[in-house]
Amino acid sequence: MLGYLGPEGTFTHEALLTLGLDSETQPFPSVTSCLDAVRAGHVEAGIVPIENSIEGIVTATSDSLSAGELLQIRAEILLPVVFGLYSRPGTSMNDVRHIVTHPHAAAQVRQWLAENLPDAEVTEKGSTAAAAEQVSHLDSPYDAAICSSAAGELYGLKALASGVADNPNAVTRFILVARPFPPEPPCGHDKTSLVVHLNEDHPGGLMEVLEQFSLRGINLCRIESRPTKDKIGNYHFSIDAEGHIAERRLQEALMGLHRTCREVLFLGSYPRADRVPQVVNDGVRDGDFEEADTWMFTILNPLESLDS
Amino acid sequence: MLGYLGPEGTFTHEALLTLGLDSETQPFPSVTSCLDAVRAGHVEAGIVPIENSIEGIVTATSDSLSAGELLQIRAEILLPVVFGLYSRPGTSMNDVRHIVTHPHAAAQVRQWLAENLPDAEVTEKGSTAAAAEQVSHLDSPYDAAICSSAAGELYGLKALASGVADNPNAVTRFILVARPFPPEPPCGHDKTSLVVHLNEDHPGGLMEVLEQFSLRGINLCRIESRPTKDKIGNYHFSIDAEGHIAERRLQEALMGLHRTCREVLFLGSYPRADRVPQVVNDGVRDGDFEEADTWMFTILNPLESLDS
Amino acid sequence: MLGYLGPEGTFTHEALLTLGLDSETQPFPSVTSCLDAVRAGHVEAGIVPIENSIEGIVTATSDSLSAGELLQIRAEILLPVVFGLYSRPGTSMNDVRHIVTHPHAAAQVRQWLAENLPDAEVTEKGSTAAAAEQVSHLDSPYDAAICSSAAGELYGLKALASGVADNPNAVTRFILVARPFPPEPPCGHDKTSLVVHLNEDHPGGLMEVLEQFSLRGINLCRIESRPTKDKIGNYHFSIDAEGHIAERRLQEALMGLHRTCREVLFLGSYPRADRVPQVVNDGVRDGDFEEADTWMFTILNPLESLDS
Amino acid sequence: MLGYLGPEGTFTHEALLTLGLDSETQPFPSVTSCLDAVRAGHVEAGIVPIENSIEGIVTATSDSLSAGELLQIRAEILLPVVFGLYSRPGTSMNDVRHIVTHPHAAAQVRQWLAENLPDAEVTEKGSTAAAAEQVSHLDSPYDAAICSSAAGELYGLKALASGVADNPNAVTRFILVARPFPPEPPCGHDKTSLVVHLNEDHPGGLMEVLEQFSLRGINLCRIESRPTKDKIGNYHFSIDAEGHIAERRLQEALMGLHRTCREVLFLGSYPRADRVPQVVNDGVRDGDFEEADTWMFTILNPLESLDS
Repeated sequence: MLGYLGPEGTFTHEALLTLGLDSETQPFPSVTSCLDAVRAGHVEAGIVPIENSIEGIVTATSDSLSAGELLQIRAEILLPVVFGLYSRPGTSMNDVRHIVTHPHAAAQVRQWLAENLPDAEVTEKGSTAAAAEQVSHLDSPYDAAICSSAAGELYGLKALASGVADNPNAVTRFILVARPFPPEPPCGHDKTSLVVHLNEDHPGGLMEVLEQFSLRGINLCRIESRPTKDKIGNYHFSIDAEGHIAERRLQEALMGLHRTCREVLFLGSYPRADRVPQVVNDGVRDGDFEEADTWMFTILNPLESLDS
Repeated sequence: MLGYLGPEGTFTHEALLTLGLDSETQPFPSVTSCLDAVRAGHVEAGIVPIENSIEGIVTATSDSLSAGELLQIRAEILLPVVFGLYSRPGTSMNDVRHIVTHPHAAAQVRQWLAENLPDAEVTEKGSTAAAAEQVSHLDSPYDAAICSSAAGELYGLKALASGVADNPNAVTRFILVARPFPPEPPCGHDKTSLVVHLNEDHPGGLMEVLEQFSLRGINLCRIESRPTKDKIGNYHFSIDAEGHIAERRLQEALMGLHRTCREVLFLGSYPRADRVPQVVNDGVRDGDFEEADTWMFTILNPLESLDS
Repeated sequence: MLGYLGPEGTFTHEALLTLGLDSETQPFPSVTSCLDAVRAGHVEAGIVPIENSIEGIVTATSDSLSAGELLQIRAEILLPVVFGLYSRPGTSMNDVRHIVTHPHAAAQVRQWLAENLPDAEVTEKGSTAAAAEQVSHLDSPYDAAICSSAAGELYGLKALASGVADNPNAVTRFILVARPFPPEPPCGHDKTSLVVHLNEDHPGGLMEVLEQFSLRGINLCRIESRPTKDKIGNYHFSIDAEGHIAERRLQEALMGLHRTCREVLFLGSYPRADRVPQVVNDGVRDGDFEEADTWMFTILNPLESLDS
Repeated sequence: MLGYLGPEGTFTHEALLTLGLDSETQPFPSVTSCLDAVRAGHVEAGIVPIENSIEGIVTATSDSLSAGELLQIRAEILLPVVFGLYSRPGTSMNDVRHIVTHPHAAAQVRQWLAENLPDAEVTEKGSTAAAAEQVSHLDSPYDAAICSSAAGELYGLKALASGVADNPNAVTRFILVARPFPPEPPCGHDKTSLVVHLNEDHPGGLMEVLEQFSLRGINLCRIESRPTKDKIGNYHFSIDAEGHIAERRLQEALMGLHRTCREVLFLGSYPRADRVPQVVNDGVRDGDFEEADTWMFTILNPLESLDS
């Protein structure tokens, strides 16, 4: 059983379908409830949005992953963000006064609305699918929903407009999350996600975190700060690094962080959705680490190595 | 005339009152409209929330400051976040089924609600004051609002509970924003705000940004990444550094960033609300820079300096 | 059998005596011949000068250690540098026209000679002991030697002046060198010596070397560049670091250098002669490394660790 | 009048001749006396050796430049190091038992001697030219000198062997030194020489020095440590950096060192003898600094800049 941020017809649901998995699926009303169901073992894994190219990190997801029982990411999915304006059959563009949608969707069609429906009032709902469901009721106070085509069709609505997106490159990133599992083998375009809590009152702490990666030739894909919720001005960092935990350079960098930071959470190594192949520099390949091990052995055991 | 994120009775309104300014005030329905009114010169300055110890950066404020016509911060204000549960007179705790509030407020009383009103349904509004206003209508679908005492009283509501806050240390930071102005003299506990856009495809770029500060002995109070909205995985950084633009070390660091980054926005130097006095190390005081200037002059003009 | 840079009566000989060892000893005419005798197994270990607080590194020693078959340092000795002016009995200060000594000794009494024997001509010999031996011959062209009291006495000379030293703090550092051996346990004030050859054409290479140490909280006692003899402008670095090869932080730093530099020579871990106790920071103690190993094991084997 | 490390016929003399200057010349018996004559104004400039690809830095030159009254380098010259074996007419290879030469020359023909004159004894003199002069005396105790062809010919000697050099790529670097002068304009392949004294007891000090350069995109050609002569383990650094003091990036880096180090000596900007053209990166060109100045002016004077 796979959980997802529902209801049926959300972009998350669409992302889940792209995985082509055979499992049964179950919608959850919120990111938190979906991830908690994974933690409790009610579902094997859950799919939730993590980042949007317009609005940034999805804080509910980020915050749930960085607190509570540890979960790990098994896969990521990228979906272009394209909406439609959907209404009950019989409604025309001219009739649309009240629109309902999710706040992120509202942010991404603001300009289109300003040009096409400047007088419409927008109300926010918890998901675009919930917005579509609302509009499907005959007594709904809303005339139309901004939602995915999947949601529009699911609730028997009619598209007044499609391909609605202020930024045609907008994309949302989703992740498939499970309880900790033995890492799968690297695929050559891997990514590793972490949460790093710095020691307090340690100026230069962030720089040391970056050095743990740079000294091992590891590029970062993403680094974001999030408040730690206890005191204004305290942050932890959510980091995506190139490479896989099976690589020695990643292991040494993570152990370096573990030694010097207050807390480090390993959130999984998994294939990058953009399939950019990784380049590993001279000196930080697994073979280089193994050779260094052998060299250190001969230093610590010079007689043994002379004998053999 | 000073603008603020309204309506009357919001925490922002309360923050504005703590400034003790004589000016007339004008509420605005959104952060964006308030800041645009400052840009257009309709108000002299505007006060908006920028950061919350629970939810993190207020993205609308951060994004408006980092795009569009340049604005600058003149002051910051810290307010503790404490809510009340307010209803129309005659409503008792037992009657409360439908609550309305702002999403950030909802996030900060989640636990209290789970313990005290586990069955209440929460609907989100654009501000806690708007929520209070809604509840004040006799035909409101909502039984109570989570809002500030100011808002509750303003709309004639009755407190069913006060001092409601899951985290008693929660605080919101507000800023007073104006059009660019000549910097005021340092006060000894100053802060400088920036937005830095890295050059694309430049791994190690963030490390270089941090070095521009560390090499001049400047501590950072805050660094946050925000998506640049054009492509997933592109970020700019919102930075608060200790110190004042009138200091040579800050000037040199900012000029270093200006030379090596795609774009740097100076968002002002202003007193820290927490009044933590700054410590400036040997070698980066203004006097050290002046002495270095003199030394360089004698290198470039050895004969002149020998004469004098 | 222990070798030393002879002849009998040199400062090196004196340094050897301070070790209080029971072994027989054998003088060698040059640093190179002494170290080659160690390499060939003709002597168990050899003692040679490595550094002088006035003249700097002893290049013959440094260059021999960084080329040819690997040797390792077992101990270091510090001796104050104080000379005497020694002549054949019957010679007075007024008679001294021609002085003979070692170039380093000449450099360290230059000022004393300028004040006391401004007209004397100084000739250079391979060692101060050889200078004393020369003067002991009745037909020597030299009137006096600048040498140690040991050498003066050994050759039956008379002190015309003693305590001769331009800089009363001058000190020479000697090392006891042997073939590679299993490291002895740390004593708490340890030092580790290395030679590091950078990869050519790698700007920033030295900085990376320093980072390999600084990231593991290891202070350097000394870093010197030496030409690699193949091309002007090519250098290797002779490094003394705090700490012992038995420590995990040292092992990881050295393996990091081994991975990323052209060649790294381990020249031994041994007690510091100045007995300055070492301070190891949080996060880089052996226990921190062990804890990080355990953490990484649980990441790589989550099921196993959950079971146990 | 130009001084040089004499006597006539030294490699330094040869280097001086390559400059093709019209001035009269005067030999000095030592590097120190030559440089002191420059300081005293007895000669306009002096030429001395500074570095040898085999032996490394010429410590007398390096130490004189880093102490006493400030001098500056105007030019550098590279000369290949090739010796001849020169004797009085009538001497054959078989007769050669006693050879005299300068210690550096001895070091550079050691292997050749081992192969060709394994039994010859080598005595050291202050210069190869002085060695040649010695051999020219009929009653000299020496049979042959290792010296330059210029010196051999000058003293009427006969070449028993020429092109003598263990390493055919060996080269010596000479510098033309004068009292401080206004910097000449950059030529596009410039070099700047410095001496940097770190603040004592400041671990990480060398790394900060390197960062002052790297942050401004300045490559180092050479960095060498030299003892400061007061205490073993104290060093200053002799540094050659790419670029010219007329460049803003060099000025800012040097002022950064001046602010944070105990002492910085500027030893001149001058053309590289190897004529490798310099590459200046984006962000650290003079135009980038000027643009940053303008930007900072608008920040500090927003009204003025809005007016204009």
